[in-house]
Amino acid sequence: MSEEQKASLDATLRQRPFDLSGDLTALRAGFDEVMRHIPVADDVEKTRIDFGGVGALEISIRGTNSSRVILYFHGGVYVIGSADATVPLASDLARRFNAKVVSVDYRLAPEDPYPAALEDAKAAYEGLLSQGILPRNIAFAGESAGAGLAIALLLTLKSAAMSMPSSAFLMSPYADLTLSGKSIVDKRDLDPLFTEEVLRIRVSDYVARADRSNPLISPIYGDLSGLPPLLVQVGSHELLLSDAIRLAERAAEDDVAVILDVTPGVPHVFQGYAAFLDEGDAALNRAAEFLALHFSRPSN
Amino acid sequence: MSEEQKASLDATLRQRPFDLSGDLTALRAGFDEVMRHIPVADDVEKTRIDFGGVGALEISIRGTNSSRVILYFHGGVYVIGSADATVPLASDLARRFNAKVVSVDYRLAPEDPYPAALEDAKAAYEGLLSQGILPRNIAFAGESAGAGLAIALLLTLKSAAMSMPSSAFLMSPYADLTLSGKSIVDKRDLDPLFTEEVLRIRVSDYVARADRSNPLISPIYGDLSGLPPLLVQVGSHELLLSDAIRLAERAAEDDVAVILDVTPGVPHVFQGYAAFLDEGDAALNRAAEFLALHFSRPSN
Repeated sequence: MSEEQKASLDATLRQRPFDLSGDLTALRAGFDEVMRHIPVADDVEKTRIDFGGVGALEISIRGTNSSRVILYFHGGVYVIGSADATVPLASDLARRFNAKVVSVDYRLAPEDPYPAALEDAKAAYEGLLSQGILPRNIAFAGESAGAGLAIALLLTLKSAAMSMPSSAFLMSPYADLTLSGKSIVDKRDLDPLFTEEVLRIRVSDYVARADRSNPLISPIYGDLSGLPPLLVQVGSHELLLSDAIRLAERAAEDDVAVILDVTPGVPHVFQGYAAFLDEGDAALNRAAEFLALHFSRPSN
Repeated sequence: MSEEQKASLDATLRQRPFDLSGDLTALRAGFDEVMRHIPVADDVEKTRIDFGGVGALEISIRGTNSSRVILYFHGGVYVIGSADATVPLASDLARRFNAKVVSVDYRLAPEDPYPAALEDAKAAYEGLLSQGILPRNIAFAGESAGAGLAIALLLTLKSAAMSMPSSAFLMSPYADLTLSGKSIVDKRDLDPLFTEEVLRIRVSDYVARADRSNPLISPIYGDLSGLPPLLVQVGSHELLLSDAIRLAERAAEDDVAVILDVTPGVPHVFQGYAAFLDEGDAALNRAAEFLALHFSRPSN
C-alpha cells in the first residue's frame, strides 16, 4: 500500500499549488486558507498567547494535562507560514507526544529579515521559562526553516549560557542557506516541491545583508557542541537531504547525541501526511519515543 | 553516573593490551583468551555448526525458541577475532532481540585475503536459506570489519539477485579501507583504541592486490540502492566515525531506509560494554526495537 501512497502524494505535490517565487501577500493568504481546510479532530484546543509582543498558538488535546511543552517553529523558507497553519501537524504531535504544543508566530521576511525570527524564537522560549516551565520539560520541534531556526536558537542559548531544552526534533531542516548541498542538484528531479531557483530567490529575503554562512542562519557551519540530543528526520526525495545529513554529521563530530533518520522515497516534511502515508505515521511514532526518552532525563 | 562510566572505560582501553601491529599468532590467541574470560550467563547455549566448510557458532538462550536468526560477523580488521570471541555480545543480542545468533568464523587475512571473508559470509547466508529459514526472519549484524562485511554481503546478494534479509544492524562499521575519513585525523586524540598507523598496516593484509576502494571492500563507494533498512550505530570518540556517517549518507542518497545513531563520548563498538555502560545498554535497546520492527515485515 505504501508505494501507492507515496506515488499518489508525489503526483499531488507536483501540481505545485504554491509558487514560492510569486507574490507573497497572495501566497501567504492562499497557504493559510488551504491549511485551514485540513480536518482537525474535535478535541483539539487552540489558545492564542503572547510572549511580550511575540504571538503564538497553544495547541493541546482536551482532557489531557501534561507538564511537557513542545516549542514549535513552522516552515516556509522564512517568508510564509503561520502558527495557525501548523495546527494539523502540531495537534498530531501534541497527541502522540502527550504534550502541549506552543507554535510561534515569528516575524517573516522580507519585511523582517534575520535576526527577527531568531529574536522572536528566543522571546518565546524565555516566555516559557518565565512561566516557571522547566527546561527539562521543554523540547523544541520544527519543520524546514523552523527546524533550522530551532538549531539557531539552541546556538543562541549556548552563547548566552542559558539552560537547554531536553531535546530537539527536526523535520527536514533547512540548515544551509548557501544552498551548497549536493542533493540540491542530485535530487532535482525527485523533489516534487522545491526548485533551486525558488529557494535562491527567497534566501536573500531572509539573509538580507547578513552572511549566508553565519551559523545562526546556516547551522551546519556552527559549532554544535553542547547541544541537547537531536533527532533529524528527512525524506530521500528532497533537495534538502544534504542539509539533514550535514547537520547530523556536524553534531556527531561535535559530540552531540544525534539520530539521523532517513525515510526513502518521501518528500519534504512527509510527517505532515501521516494521516494517509504510513511512513509519516511510523516516523512520528519514532519521534514520540525519542522525545519521551529525553523528557524523562534531567536537563542539561 | 554515565560520565564516570565513560571515563573509566576510556582509561581502561588506553592501556591498549592488544597491539594490532604486532605478531598475529600471539595476538589472536591473546584476544580469544581475554574474551573467553568475560562472564556469560548460565543459560547461554553454544553449538558449533558448519556451512559447507565455513564454521560458525550458534548462540541462543535456553528456553527460548524464536524463528528469528541474526547472522553475525565479528570485528578485528579482518585479521583477528573469532565466533567464540563474540559470545558475550552475541548472547546479549540473542536475549534482547529474541533471536538465535549465528556467528560466522570467516577466514582471516593475511592468510586468506579478500574475497575469502566475503565468500564465507555468503556461504553462511546460503546455508541458512538452505535450512528453509526465510529471508524475512534473518537480520545481519556486525561490528567494525564485520559490519563492513555485512554491507559487502548485501551488495553481493543484490548483484546475484538473491533475497535480502529483513534489515542490518551495523556497529561502528569499518567501511572505508582507503582510510580517507576526516575522523581518522580529527578524532586521533579521542579514540582510545585505534591509531591510523595500526589500521594502515592491517589494510594491506586484507586488500592484498585488490583495489581498496572496491565497494565490496569499502562499501561507502558502492551503489547501496536496493538494500534493506540499515541501523548504523557509532560512538563519537572513534577514528571510524566518518565511516559510519558516510555509509549512512550514501544509503540516504541511494533511497535506502537508514538510521544513523551517534552516541557522544564513547569508543568503538561501545555496545560491547553494555553491562557497565548505560549508553551501550540504551543503544542495544534501540537496536532491538529497530530489528523487531523490520522482522515483522515481509521480506524485500
